[in-house]
Amino acid sequence: MSGGEATYVALSGGIGGAKLSLGLSHLLGNRLTIIANTGDDFEHLGLTVSPDVDTTLYTLAGLVNPETGWGRREETWNFMQSMAALGGPSWFNLGDKDLATHVERTRRLRSGERLTAITAHLARAFGVSARVLPMADEPVRTIVESDAGTLAFQEYFVRDRCQPVVRRIRYDGADNARVTPEIAEALSRPDLAGIVVCPSNPWFSVDPILAVPGMRDALRASGAPIIAVTPIVGGRALKGPTAKIMSELGFSPGVRTIVEHYAGIIDGLIVDSADATVAGTLPLAAMTTNTVMHTLADKIDLAEACLGYCTRPASHRHPKRQTRAI
Amino acid sequence: MSGGEATYVALSGGIGGAKLSLGLSHLLGNRLTIIANTGDDFEHLGLTVSPDVDTTLYTLAGLVNPETGWGRREETWNFMQSMAALGGPSWFNLGDKDLATHVERTRRLRSGERLTAITAHLARAFGVSARVLPMADEPVRTIVESDAGTLAFQEYFVRDRCQPVVRRIRYDGADNARVTPEIAEALSRPDLAGIVVCPSNPWFSVDPILAVPGMRDALRASGAPIIAVTPIVGGRALKGPTAKIMSELGFSPGVRTIVEHYAGIIDGLIVDSADATVAGTLPLAAMTTNTVMHTLADKIDLAEACLGYCTRPASHRHPKRQTRAI
Repeated sequence: MSGGEATYVALSGGIGGAKLSLGLSHLLGNRLTIIANTGDDFEHLGLTVSPDVDTTLYTLAGLVNPETGWGRREETWNFMQSMAALGGPSWFNLGDKDLATHVERTRRLRSGERLTAITAHLARAFGVSARVLPMADEPVRTIVESDAGTLAFQEYFVRDRCQPVVRRIRYDGADNARVTPEIAEALSRPDLAGIVVCPSNPWFSVDPILAVPGMRDALRASGAPIIAVTPIVGGRALKGPTAKIMSELGFSPGVRTIVEHYAGIIDGLIVDSADATVAGTLPLAAMTTNTVMHTLADKIDLAEACLGYCTRPASHRHPKRQTRAI
Repeated sequence: MSGGEATYVALSGGIGGAKLSLGLSHLLGNRLTIIANTGDDFEHLGLTVSPDVDTTLYTLAGLVNPETGWGRREETWNFMQSMAALGGPSWFNLGDKDLATHVERTRRLRSGERLTAITAHLARAFGVSARVLPMADEPVRTIVESDAGTLAFQEYFVRDRCQPVVRRIRYDGADNARVTPEIAEALSRPDLAGIVVCPSNPWFSVDPILAVPGMRDALRASGAPIIAVTPIVGGRALKGPTAKIMSELGFSPGVRTIVEHYAGIIDGLIVDSADATVAGTLPLAAMTTNTVMHTLADKIDLAEACLGYCTRPASHRHPKRQTRAI
């Protein structure tokens, strides 16, 4: 197993993040800690829904719907159909099995349990070996200011299908959030060998994590190499609105923008082979490999590349370009 | 159709009440108003569940599970099974379709809608023609003081399967409840031809309704004949703990106890043919007929008997005994 008894931390949100997390968990088991974005969380039908945390849990537990990348496999939709028949809000799909996760999370939150403890309980119940930590116990909510008005993230993302033009993104509640003791512990372990920023949307999935006061400092203070995997391949996002919002926010949709975005945070970037020519021109160490994860083998291969990149001596992470020699 | 354009009101709770309500609704359509017990309501998993209202709605809509008499037909249980797998509370069965009713009710209650308006919305969505009115908009909660301690009704009834010995029953919140404008209107209509107290448990299903301040007065002030159908047949309850709690509360489990319980409220009692010998000895007008409702025809027959009994001249409701001449 790569990395011996070393531990690793991944920053993750969304489907791309969950996919790489699955590859990492295959290699690391309980030596992997995932810090999951909760900026996507929202209150819907009286329930606190944590889409990124749940996508991570379901993916690592082998319960995820392989067709969609979110929700549970072998799901039924009788609740949703009945809600629609009653004229209730039905724009956010909640499967019958999935619903239990939200009801139980909400029940425990109301009884005063921390989101971290609840997530640990769910992970145990689902048989997940990696440690999944929400980025904060306090609610942080990603808000999209758009040409269609101010939208909660899921309104923008699911209800309005990312169609509004994004003008600004903010993370409401972030000022009141704190780095949890569990995250602080994971980032200060002497055996921490690397931190992987998953190929998730920088603005919607990773920035909410970085917006938690003290998080950037805790990441840098860990002393562990921090690498990111680009969510952009050949100038386009594999999934979701990353490239679209890059343009809308005034950035060129490419790997260079990712590097600039993570300046001061990451030590190295893993770039897709499709962007090999760009990789050599970046103001940062970069290695190229296949970052497109269709199969489990793809996920494990990319995870191995991440671990290998982290465990190189620091001086080796900084040459202008790395090829896939690992 | 019996009763011409006359309107009728039924007081109902539980499965027996829903069965007779179905018979009445077949005869009366939108000329039937059902005042449904909400003392059974409770907050569970963050949801406001109204078992008697829902049993009434599902039964009248033809959606009820015919095996159990509660819940929805062709139901699935993926939510419940997933909750159990997460270690969440799973003693109260909530089917996937049924769950939508509770989520939508709770959502609307939180947004400030009255329970009466929400119930009317659900009835419309389910295609119910009768008017179903919760006994009050304010929460009233039936509490069972027992040898196993103080129990919320559903804890006693479902979780503990009616096994604790009942010492006292109280209706928390009743003092703050009011007769709704809709109930007041139904009870003051000049075309109101009768009020039927369904064969429901007097303490658990009907007394909570009568505990709403002003309800007894509104019933009597209507001037309409008030008849009850006994929930006791041959000294036993057909369903549920009626006979058991009669004994525990110090009453003899029989028709006479029902009459004494409803003294001052009802003008006549419909007694099962099995109790014909008792019927002649009661201090109140009584008619005998079959009160056991297995088939839809049974329900309609009993409903017809009720309407016929109500529409007789008042002087005819008071002979010592009526036979099934209607």
